[in-house]
Amino acid sequence: MSRYTPPLRDLQFVLHELLHVTDELKALPAHADIDAETINAVLEEGGKFAAEVLFPLNRSGDEQGCTLDKAAGQVRTPQGFKDAYAAYVAGGWPALSCDPEYGGQGLPIVVNQCFYEMLNSANQAWTMYPGLSHGAYECLKAHGTDEQKRTYLPRLVSGEWTGTMCLTEPHCGTDLGLLRTKAEPQPDGSHRITGQKIFISAGDHDLAANIVHLVLARLPDAPAGSKGISLFVVPKYLVNPDGSVGARNAIAPGAIEHKMGIHGNATCQMNLDGAVGWLVGEPHKGLAAMFVMMNAARLKAPDKPADPIIVHPDVRKMLLTARAYAEGGRALAIWTALLIDKELSAAEEDDRREAADLVALVTPIVKAFLTDNAWIATSHCLQVYGGHGYIREWGMEQYVRDARINMIYEGTNTIQSLDLLGRKVLGDNGKRLKKFGKLVQDFIEEEGTNEAMQEFVNPLADLGDKVTKLTAELGMKAFGNADEVGAAAVDYLRVCGHLVFAYFWARMARVALDRQAGGDPFYAAKLHTARFYFAKLLPETAGLIRSARSGAAPMMAMDEALF
Amino acid sequence: MSRYTPPLRDLQFVLHELLHVTDELKALPAHADIDAETINAVLEEGGKFAAEVLFPLNRSGDEQGCTLDKAAGQVRTPQGFKDAYAAYVAGGWPALSCDPEYGGQGLPIVVNQCFYEMLNSANQAWTMYPGLSHGAYECLKAHGTDEQKRTYLPRLVSGEWTGTMCLTEPHCGTDLGLLRTKAEPQPDGSHRITGQKIFISAGDHDLAANIVHLVLARLPDAPAGSKGISLFVVPKYLVNPDGSVGARNAIAPGAIEHKMGIHGNATCQMNLDGAVGWLVGEPHKGLAAMFVMMNAARLKAPDKPADPIIVHPDVRKMLLTARAYAEGGRALAIWTALLIDKELSAAEEDDRREAADLVALVTPIVKAFLTDNAWIATSHCLQVYGGHGYIREWGMEQYVRDARINMIYEGTNTIQSLDLLGRKVLGDNGKRLKKFGKLVQDFIEEEGTNEAMQEFVNPLADLGDKVTKLTAELGMKAFGNADEVGAAAVDYLRVCGHLVFAYFWARMARVALDRQAGGDPFYAAKLHTARFYFAKLLPETAGLIRSARSGAAPMMAMDEALF
Repeated sequence: MSRYTPPLRDLQFVLHELLHVTDELKALPAHADIDAETINAVLEEGGKFAAEVLFPLNRSGDEQGCTLDKAAGQVRTPQGFKDAYAAYVAGGWPALSCDPEYGGQGLPIVVNQCFYEMLNSANQAWTMYPGLSHGAYECLKAHGTDEQKRTYLPRLVSGEWTGTMCLTEPHCGTDLGLLRTKAEPQPDGSHRITGQKIFISAGDHDLAANIVHLVLARLPDAPAGSKGISLFVVPKYLVNPDGSVGARNAIAPGAIEHKMGIHGNATCQMNLDGAVGWLVGEPHKGLAAMFVMMNAARLKAPDKPADPIIVHPDVRKMLLTARAYAEGGRALAIWTALLIDKELSAAEEDDRREAADLVALVTPIVKAFLTDNAWIATSHCLQVYGGHGYIREWGMEQYVRDARINMIYEGTNTIQSLDLLGRKVLGDNGKRLKKFGKLVQDFIEEEGTNEAMQEFVNPLADLGDKVTKLTAELGMKAFGNADEVGAAAVDYLRVCGHLVFAYFWARMARVALDRQAGGDPFYAAKLHTARFYFAKLLPETAGLIRSARSGAAPMMAMDEALF
Repeated sequence: MSRYTPPLRDLQFVLHELLHVTDELKALPAHADIDAETINAVLEEGGKFAAEVLFPLNRSGDEQGCTLDKAAGQVRTPQGFKDAYAAYVAGGWPALSCDPEYGGQGLPIVVNQCFYEMLNSANQAWTMYPGLSHGAYECLKAHGTDEQKRTYLPRLVSGEWTGTMCLTEPHCGTDLGLLRTKAEPQPDGSHRITGQKIFISAGDHDLAANIVHLVLARLPDAPAGSKGISLFVVPKYLVNPDGSVGARNAIAPGAIEHKMGIHGNATCQMNLDGAVGWLVGEPHKGLAAMFVMMNAARLKAPDKPADPIIVHPDVRKMLLTARAYAEGGRALAIWTALLIDKELSAAEEDDRREAADLVALVTPIVKAFLTDNAWIATSHCLQVYGGHGYIREWGMEQYVRDARINMIYEGTNTIQSLDLLGRKVLGDNGKRLKKFGKLVQDFIEEEGTNEAMQEFVNPLADLGDKVTKLTAELGMKAFGNADEVGAAAVDYLRVCGHLVFAYFWARMARVALDRQAGGDPFYAAKLHTARFYFAKLLPETAGLIRSARSGAAPMMAMDEALF
């Protein structure tokens, strides 16, 4: 069975030997009394909790997931999560680095960071329940009224109640300026809040007696955009004057998202139907208040209307990466299949052998380079969807999961790389590689005087030279030590993959240059994609070559027992 | 709703404009009659099949998965898979590039490749059912007796029956020399085969009337290792003399693996309990026969006893990558948390501001660089497990799925990169970056005369210079065009992440060098990991800097309509 071993030794190394945290902390008035023994003892106990209580629930939590009793408006967490949370509260863990004024233990953030590393490593889905509380605590502490602080902070610090942050809505993700949830002021100073929120982590659960939702919404007189957003505290259960839990508030989970992972955490759609809430901080300044705990970076142009995401260079970069890899891979795969037809059916034995040599050479590249690229490309495409990419409903995460197996089939891509470098290249003294090099060389010579092709031909020629040199260097090294092949092979295959792609992208650019005058946008797109490939993807070879040249010692010098 | 659009235009571009396949194929006697119209018509029909029949079953297949009726020894595929397969057979698709002698249409492999690209894109899990048949077809065609060919090939070509390849066993993955399944010769020339196979793709299903299993096993007199492995054909149902399907053979699925993806394909454990099989090819030469269709590369040292995988340089590379990222990330995260303590609690305002500036600078790096690294590291660790990494049982694939969300939280890692480059660095004219640079510079000067530290200090200093130059260059460009920030930001953040990691790995190496004399293996491992980091991971910056410097045009020049 797998287990989680808290990295206590390494935590202590970083804390005490590298950063000398006790000296640093003692210089801070709030932590003048800290000592290494206390820190180590806390982390040792915390590590036990992570390893013995949380880790055993990690896999079962993934398998069981959360369920929603829609009639009751209540989420049930996986078996054991509730008991683990009770133990967490009983151990005083939520209070670790909270303010003593509200019942906290006042330990430094740096201790909490080490503790949370262990919780997250042992069970990421579970840890998000208490993890979200901390945002609500910080936000109310910074912006709440005295009454709000008295009402909520001690309960968040003790862990009796948890918190959430309700930001995203179905029609707006990163750009919160678009949100629509409304807050109607009431004569008693409260507000009635109505709207729908999505992607609310730990949005509902059965771990704690109450949930303190922090909700972004618009007041009736709010300006448009992100400068018209206010922050409200909306408890799942209203709080009686004596501080006890009262009637259910009109905020409830409408659905649990089905996700690629962290199944143990309930990512909820939350419906607010005239829920009672109270303003936190000033009207229309809710985003600033919320971003006490979140990075405000997502507000790029807060007063302009929303842009379609295709205007963002990095969105285009992710899409063009997928496109360049797909179209380059298609050209290589079809060319290889045509070579197989020649290998099988050419009239002359020489032609069959020539084709067979090239097929043997590029087969491991087709297998490994294309499947590694598919993993990169599908992950990029998931990222373009933002949070929606992680939700099963949109279908994107399936492509990522499905693509992962192709790097393992036929003995893993590492084995393909050993086949390429060890057998196909070094095994015949580079003869097959030279055959492919001849094709590249012929093309470079043909296009040598074609001005428009220089942007493609020059980097292709440069990479060809580098592969020749790298191959010779690796051949020499391998002569003395077979591990040098195994150490360089994966980097080497990827460099060769780029050489082959550079050759095909240059050839495709040549065709597109010839034909673009006709105005067919297909050729314009092909040419842009070729330029993108050379500018943004081919440069990866610079690092790969350096890594390949650095040899086997960085892996092999370390004693097996130290792994 | 999402849809699949067959890339017919791009397929035609590659086939006809780039590779001129009809000219090439006409030169091959077997394909002298081919013409472009036929190829295009086949692909157009094939694209329709992929888009209209297979794609609609892609998501439902993932959701439903396969089920095993263990008593009947029978797998049920997801709803619609069987009808789709019937349509595939009725359309004559299995025969596309098969030999006309056995009922095939004799079309070139290159056409089949284009067709299969579309099938796999539309529904990878479904496509593996007929995809596996092709391996069995090729293998029997190359090595079967005339009777075996007559019995099996026409049915595999028509698609009436499908095939599998039964290689892997519970105790041996890549290294097939270890396999144990036994074949006992019978007086009638058949064999009785007993053993267990795992990871058998399309191992059982309800799509076809029979399944032709190709099974690797050992004869009683077999030499040890991979030179003692023979190949047998073992049909799910025995075949009557008239070619009709007869009694059930003693080969049956024992379980379906629960996998990260391709849920629609039944990856089976297969139990053989004296199943009747017939030798294919020569005794003890089964691996060569099987590898007609598979890459023989996985046999590295076929006659030696199996090595533990830790001897392989690339396995060590994957493990050390995970380790270097985890330990580097831990040091950075703890250092940042300590800075937050200073920001909150330092006695002097200047000290608080100094800490706050550094926290603001490194926050997007902590968020984005560490979560991108976690995705890389978890995927590497899955790969170390080989096929087992893809199976839910081992728990590794959950870490990959769980890790993926962290790149999206807080407005995606792209937004973090805009925050770093746009606000934190260029937004204050590099003042915060210079504060971090000062720390790096001080360390370099301190260690300037320490011989043992030069291997760490030199690349750190070099990268520091490069970041300074890159920052200045991007600042100038951004002045003229805001898209230059968005285009470079993701690469830039990763370069800065490596600068920070190089600084911490150098500092950790310094501590380890001081203390290693005591013989504590912890310091030896730390030092090895530091060296690994500088040799194998830091070089990524070379490509990233080139990509960052290539600017916004490669993304922005392409018209929005062309995406």
